[in-house]
Amino acid sequence: MDDLLFRTAVKPSDPDAVRRIVESTGFFYPYEVDVAVELVDAHLAEGEASGYHFVFAELGGETVGYGCVGPIACTQSSFDFFWIAVHSRCRGRGVGRHLVEACEARMRQLGASRVYVETSGREQYEPTRRFYLACGYQEVAVFPDYYAPGDAKVVYLKVLGPAI
Amino acid sequence: MDDLLFRTAVKPSDPDAVRRIVESTGFFYPYEVDVAVELVDAHLAEGEASGYHFVFAELGGETVGYGCVGPIACTQSSFDFFWIAVHSRCRGRGVGRHLVEACEARMRQLGASRVYVETSGREQYEPTRRFYLACGYQEVAVFPDYYAPGDAKVVYLKVLGPAI
Repeated sequence: MDDLLFRTAVKPSDPDAVRRIVESTGFFYPYEVDVAVELVDAHLAEGEASGYHFVFAELGGETVGYGCVGPIACTQSSFDFFWIAVHSRCRGRGVGRHLVEACEARMRQLGASRVYVETSGREQYEPTRRFYLACGYQEVAVFPDYYAPGDAKVVYLKVLGPAI
Repeated sequence: MDDLLFRTAVKPSDPDAVRRIVESTGFFYPYEVDVAVELVDAHLAEGEASGYHFVFAELGGETVGYGCVGPIACTQSSFDFFWIAVHSRCRGRGVGRHLVEACEARMRQLGASRVYVETSGREQYEPTRRFYLACGYQEVAVFPDYYAPGDAKVVYLKVLGPAI
């Protein structure tokens, strides 16, 4: 993975890249894909004032994954890890792990002390939940039936450092 | 309290009313007051498409309290109880309890099955937390240091009915 590069600048081609990446995973409902793309559009329109910050992973010059993070309103230094996705073609190669680290570095730059990630309790998301645990995130809450009957919300936390 | 009335239509005078009510409580930081008013502005500009729904309590023709609720994106029928506030002049008279019930009735109309409320774990919010418990809400999660060091987020849930 010597050729894995990260960038935080958002390019006009990124909404398409994000749609391609998110769709490739087969994990998301169409309206969720639209939400993912809207956040990129929001950053292109408003910049960092949008509240959405991105890290893109490039492999051999191609955008193959991305993370989207942002400060949680009305908190001193808590951040949400809104999205992370790696193109299905590149899975199992450690891109996700490196991308999480790059996103955490970006959040530290932005003043984050605590990072929260939410995901589904559905069977399909078991690899996702194991992934967060492997990245050092702790499960801190479960909300049964949150998304829908039988579909819980599970919340993970990683403390990046003391609040400054 | 025979003369307590509720309305869901939002009037052009409501942003001012909400500012007055929220400020009177002495509970909120100035930027939080601004957020409260922005949600009313959003409803006036975009209507129900804003995602923010209101119930206003009127006593003797004056708006003395309000609640703001809305569906949680990407959930089937979970709602957030964003705000509830009663003018300090009218506290201790049960307006809050009636307002919660009116907001729950409104959420049922809108298809809600589960209502989540978040508040602070700070000492100052102890009456707030007791209020939610008294209204039939259950504490379902605590996130220490969420808002700031020593300032936890506490989440309450009330199940309004089965998801349809």
